[in-house]
Amino acid sequence: MKIFITGVDGYIGWPLFNYLQAHGYELSGIDNGARRIHVNEVGGMSVIPIDDMRQRFGDGRYRGDLLSYYLLLERLKDFKPDVIVHLGEQPSAPFSMMNDVYARETQVNNVIGTLNLLWAAKEACPEAHIITTATMGEYGTPGIPIPEGKFPEGSLWDTTLTHISGGSNGDLSGLQFPRSPGSFYHASKVHDSVNCELACRIWNMRITDVMQGVVYGTRTEIDVPSPTRFDIDECFGTVINRFCAQAVAGIPLTIYGLGRQTRGYLPLQDVMQSLRLLIENPADIGEYRVVNQLAETLKVIDIANGVQMAAKGHGFEVEVQHVDNPRIEKEDHAYEVACDTLGDLGYIATTSHDVEIYQILGELIMHRDRIESVRNVIAPKTQWEKS
Amino acid sequence: MKIFITGVDGYIGWPLFNYLQAHGYELSGIDNGARRIHVNEVGGMSVIPIDDMRQRFGDGRYRGDLLSYYLLLERLKDFKPDVIVHLGEQPSAPFSMMNDVYARETQVNNVIGTLNLLWAAKEACPEAHIITTATMGEYGTPGIPIPEGKFPEGSLWDTTLTHISGGSNGDLSGLQFPRSPGSFYHASKVHDSVNCELACRIWNMRITDVMQGVVYGTRTEIDVPSPTRFDIDECFGTVINRFCAQAVAGIPLTIYGLGRQTRGYLPLQDVMQSLRLLIENPADIGEYRVVNQLAETLKVIDIANGVQMAAKGHGFEVEVQHVDNPRIEKEDHAYEVACDTLGDLGYIATTSHDVEIYQILGELIMHRDRIESVRNVIAPKTQWEKS
Repeated sequence: MKIFITGVDGYIGWPLFNYLQAHGYELSGIDNGARRIHVNEVGGMSVIPIDDMRQRFGDGRYRGDLLSYYLLLERLKDFKPDVIVHLGEQPSAPFSMMNDVYARETQVNNVIGTLNLLWAAKEACPEAHIITTATMGEYGTPGIPIPEGKFPEGSLWDTTLTHISGGSNGDLSGLQFPRSPGSFYHASKVHDSVNCELACRIWNMRITDVMQGVVYGTRTEIDVPSPTRFDIDECFGTVINRFCAQAVAGIPLTIYGLGRQTRGYLPLQDVMQSLRLLIENPADIGEYRVVNQLAETLKVIDIANGVQMAAKGHGFEVEVQHVDNPRIEKEDHAYEVACDTLGDLGYIATTSHDVEIYQILGELIMHRDRIESVRNVIAPKTQWEKS
Repeated sequence: MKIFITGVDGYIGWPLFNYLQAHGYELSGIDNGARRIHVNEVGGMSVIPIDDMRQRFGDGRYRGDLLSYYLLLERLKDFKPDVIVHLGEQPSAPFSMMNDVYARETQVNNVIGTLNLLWAAKEACPEAHIITTATMGEYGTPGIPIPEGKFPEGSLWDTTLTHISGGSNGDLSGLQFPRSPGSFYHASKVHDSVNCELACRIWNMRITDVMQGVVYGTRTEIDVPSPTRFDIDECFGTVINRFCAQAVAGIPLTIYGLGRQTRGYLPLQDVMQSLRLLIENPADIGEYRVVNQLAETLKVIDIANGVQMAAKGHGFEVEVQHVDNPRIEKEDHAYEVACDTLGDLGYIATTSHDVEIYQILGELIMHRDRIESVRNVIAPKTQWEKS
């Protein structure tokens, strides 16, 4: 089976490339190198040293931008993939909120990149199964149970619009569940989802849109020829990875606000398992399938506690500090998420956040100097400003 | 009060500019001329002759593109508008479905143009009331009553997700009602709405997002120094205007499929009234207010019958022809729409589709030769292709 990965040079892309290759798939990919440039621009770096693209892929053949439509089209026509795993997106919320330039770059890269992918796949490989990795953040925190993308069968709405409906209930089944993104990055993923759902409905494309929890960790179950990147700056360092780096460098863990924000999390290792299950069990022709992909829901304070405990296991103490929340978000809220599809496909967690945090800390200790060298970009500076 | 109109050279923009000026507002605007270029590219033209931008505005001072962020920012800083009426969007669904180039142009122009407007307004005039004209097409045809943007107070959802929620009802009140756009154009307006809602929530901006029905007609209640454009091609000619032109030129009215597609409609004259009511009654600081703006809901076959009747009044016969529907859409469906806000603000219909169609026909008769000259671009060629 032939698999084309966009964003193949990224945090998930590079280990996925190796993981799928080790499992016998034929691989190709594309990456515009934006992640490396962006991390550099915000003053960060991968604190685990990584190879450059030429070292990883042997030559420059995977370099390319989804915004270059005809380049993308040629690549797809040449390779004729059965599956496209679409990871080529700017993934940072703070980056997208920093200024108009980065907001624009985020939405152009993500929305127009995905739009190009849809048109190019329609022309080059219309039956290919496209797996797009979106984010649980599309839903926001609605305070009610979150289904997988759409209202499930049997969902009734007491319309309250009695003056136009005569008081009858409305049948919500099959309509998209409300999205409420919290940044221009999250909004760009909602836009992608809307474009993807449309492409399935009008063109009979087959798309699995993965609402992914926050991914963390350094390893996968197979040996990768060289490590994947590990960012810890306020933009590209996700919370577990960032906390682990702070712990190792003796910096208090920075909890935004109350720290009761609850999100879904998933270790990198099980992202591999999950994406492979989705590759092996494609959406039907014309189906827009949304999968909520997370292993655990955790509060930020629970993560901080977990890092403190794991650090003790390694023999060092870690402080915790509550800082003003730079984001506009609820800090204490319900969070119930349906994630039935992966379970039905046979997903079984192979690890947990406790185990992974202990492992990450162990791996980061040898990179303490590199963490020290970028410590000034860990604390949040980008504000979601209320006027 | 100072009002800045984007898309000021357009079908609605030009009469709105004159209408608001006549009512004593101070006006400025911007337009990139894209509509003129696009209509030309698809082989159409305004069958009612129109002035060029320099004739309309005296010089080139309103020429400019929302994609030029710093130009836009300067214009807003100079003018300091109290209200921005945002009409500067590519408005054609078929145009956006024709090929990847036009799909991309539509989403870049609309999504990034609006994103730029949000950032520029935040910097230049954060308290300005932004009125964006979107489309009723954002909702699609869900088959259940359509509220104004969000689920109204008291909306309960029988979740059916008993395995995660314990069977409790979910409170949908205040969450966005599902959108289901039917083209990449309609999708771009959904994207705009998502970005606008976000800007209100995180930046305290004040936005009225107008879900507009299909606009038709040639006149407003005031004398405009020169007419507004009137397009009849398959892309930019909306159904009532297109039918009127076909009638005048002796071409059978082309009904797509069954013709029972129901949509909201609004005459140009009452768009002026409606937008003025919204200007005079702004959204609150931080409020994202959605207004469904339509005067009547009509089936396509009813419109065709109306045109036949009005033509008889002018002394000529009109044929009707059902053609294969080029779009993927439901052809027979329920359509109940709440449009309470405008009524509450005092909107009163000043005309109806019957009256306006009679008037349009009368005005088009003198332009029969011009209609004849573009008759080959009226019939639908752009297909929503199922693979």
